[in-house]
Amino acid sequence: MTRQEREQGRREVLERAVYGPSSSPGNRKFVELFASMPLRLELGGSLSHVVVAFETWGTLNPEGSNAILVLHALTGDSHAAGPAEVGHPTPGWWNHQIGPGRAIDTDKYFVVCPNVLGGCQGTTGPSSVKPGTTTPYGSLFPDITIRDQVAVDIELSRALGINRWKGIVGGSMGGMRALEMAIMAPQLVDRMMILAATAAATAEQIALCSIQIETIISDPQFLGGDYYNVGDGLGPVAGMAIARKLAMYSYRSELEFQSRFGRKLQGDQVADGVGNFAIESYLENHAVKLNERFDPNSYVVLSKAMNSHDVARGRGGLSEVLSSIKVRTFVAGVDSDRLYPIWQQSQLAEHIPTTELFATIHSKYGHDAFLIEAEQVAEFISKSLG
Amino acid sequence: MTRQEREQGRREVLERAVYGPSSSPGNRKFVELFASMPLRLELGGSLSHVVVAFETWGTLNPEGSNAILVLHALTGDSHAAGPAEVGHPTPGWWNHQIGPGRAIDTDKYFVVCPNVLGGCQGTTGPSSVKPGTTTPYGSLFPDITIRDQVAVDIELSRALGINRWKGIVGGSMGGMRALEMAIMAPQLVDRMMILAATAAATAEQIALCSIQIETIISDPQFLGGDYYNVGDGLGPVAGMAIARKLAMYSYRSELEFQSRFGRKLQGDQVADGVGNFAIESYLENHAVKLNERFDPNSYVVLSKAMNSHDVARGRGGLSEVLSSIKVRTFVAGVDSDRLYPIWQQSQLAEHIPTTELFATIHSKYGHDAFLIEAEQVAEFISKSLG
Repeated sequence: MTRQEREQGRREVLERAVYGPSSSPGNRKFVELFASMPLRLELGGSLSHVVVAFETWGTLNPEGSNAILVLHALTGDSHAAGPAEVGHPTPGWWNHQIGPGRAIDTDKYFVVCPNVLGGCQGTTGPSSVKPGTTTPYGSLFPDITIRDQVAVDIELSRALGINRWKGIVGGSMGGMRALEMAIMAPQLVDRMMILAATAAATAEQIALCSIQIETIISDPQFLGGDYYNVGDGLGPVAGMAIARKLAMYSYRSELEFQSRFGRKLQGDQVADGVGNFAIESYLENHAVKLNERFDPNSYVVLSKAMNSHDVARGRGGLSEVLSSIKVRTFVAGVDSDRLYPIWQQSQLAEHIPTTELFATIHSKYGHDAFLIEAEQVAEFISKSLG
Repeated sequence: MTRQEREQGRREVLERAVYGPSSSPGNRKFVELFASMPLRLELGGSLSHVVVAFETWGTLNPEGSNAILVLHALTGDSHAAGPAEVGHPTPGWWNHQIGPGRAIDTDKYFVVCPNVLGGCQGTTGPSSVKPGTTTPYGSLFPDITIRDQVAVDIELSRALGINRWKGIVGGSMGGMRALEMAIMAPQLVDRMMILAATAAATAEQIALCSIQIETIISDPQFLGGDYYNVGDGLGPVAGMAIARKLAMYSYRSELEFQSRFGRKLQGDQVADGVGNFAIESYLENHAVKLNERFDPNSYVVLSKAMNSHDVARGRGGLSEVLSSIKVRTFVAGVDSDRLYPIWQQSQLAEHIPTTELFATIHSKYGHDAFLIEAEQVAEFISKSLG
């Protein structure tokens, strides 16, 4: 692809992009991929007419050499930066990292953040209308893997005319995607920055994801996944509330919970006993908030995708696969992360021969530190981008 | 109480004891307490005609100085030792600790293990018939605390004519009960041996218990707790299955899960993907087995009791309360315990001035090591009993 063709293609895509709901809020754009040729899925089946919602910040330079791909975690979306807006009730999840003068400097870089395949914030997922029908996929949405998500990210790169990303960065599930992309399409990636992720989901991570999946699918309102526009229209909110509470436990640390809540009660209650603890209120608030913005089917589909994550699947031994990576690699872990413990990032750094940096984020916030510890994360990203 | 009165009383109790179901299996005995004067509960309300199921091993010596009280954990029961039998589908949960020549030597000691108040293996709990009615308590069973459980243990001591226990020993919830007994009735306790327990439930422990409670009570078959003899009669088995899976996660360690299961699939399956992992099968087996032997209402009541656990409640500061303990104390923790991390046993040992031993159990089995690491636990008990 010549530079001219690339620019032409990108212009067309970006012009076509705003074709989604006319109420499409703020910065979000949409592109349709796999329209002529369906995406063949790793576990069987296919998806066609895959819509990807994405946001961009900054300007691509004429050489196309300043593009950065930001990949979100399980319940994240394309709104990595920017203020709260319609459809995005909170500011960008990495607002403190992306912007003019920030670690991912939008005066220097062209930054792209797509919503993941299987998600529920604009990209095709179980709540999307199935092409050729008038109803959402629901139970018909297929099982997908991290590799399927990355196949979409690769196609998006092509659609945007980006031949090579200056950097791909992601935490948690976003880190899994970055890692798979470096293996599946190394020619597209100058460097990857992985935070709090792993080479392969462990038994423990599978256990936690599976329990969360079970809380959702065993909620009678799940209706096998076809709960859209049925009954009260709420779907399995009780099951997803429990899943979110367990997830929050896994995202944070004992130290944080104990120093922040201890045995305190909600509000100004004084009686002690068997309930109404502040920690319960905290978990409940998180559960309510997630139910307001996230589709339980997406939660199930993405949790299964994370369980599938194993860079070694079908490729040989784990260390062999990691050793074959040739993309410049920058890895960070959190010392209090109990979900993706730091030995897993250390494993990546040890086995990937092109690792240039292994950083430890010191925090009491556990896994979520990659979202919270703004200064340390910024330092890691700045060093990685050189 | 003179020695003669004590022996007479004990004989009567033990004679009266086998009054429970005539099919009462094996070694189990029953005693009714609080028949004339109800037990006033800490959080309000009362319970009368409290039946306690208990088992004994060995013989009380004439001085009454060789009695040991063994207190079980959440899903344990009176069957601490002995073979599998009707009503007890598995051998005693501390079979390797209790018996002739074992650490708790039944040739030397008279060993008593009662089922806890609120339980479901013979002692009064939500599934018991409410006195004066023909139906189980169900939703009418009151909230209880660890202190209420200990009030029953104290009354049981009196009924058995035991003025002083040579030792009280318990792990997890059993350890909480031992600790409370040493505070509530120090005159009854020569020494206590606490394994893998805490002075007060932390925010994190409350979170995990609360999530488990929620999985049970949000199961539509819970019916507010009145699911006995209703519908299919199974009750909230789906909710309790999830609770058990989460509990098993918390009882074990990442290292064990990873070395035992990793990403292995169930049975001889070979396809990899998004399900059928061996770890899922393991959790499912535990869930099925617990549903066969445990009442979800008891699970809820006892989980709430553990959330209430705080030796400082109404007594002053935590370190002050622990510092005031005068009972000889022996404490053990497990280095891989993520549910009751070893800092909590260290806290007990540090603050209780009469601590004579603080032992670290080295294990990859996490919290459950107090049930699994037979040799190290035996060494701890042997040292404690001198």
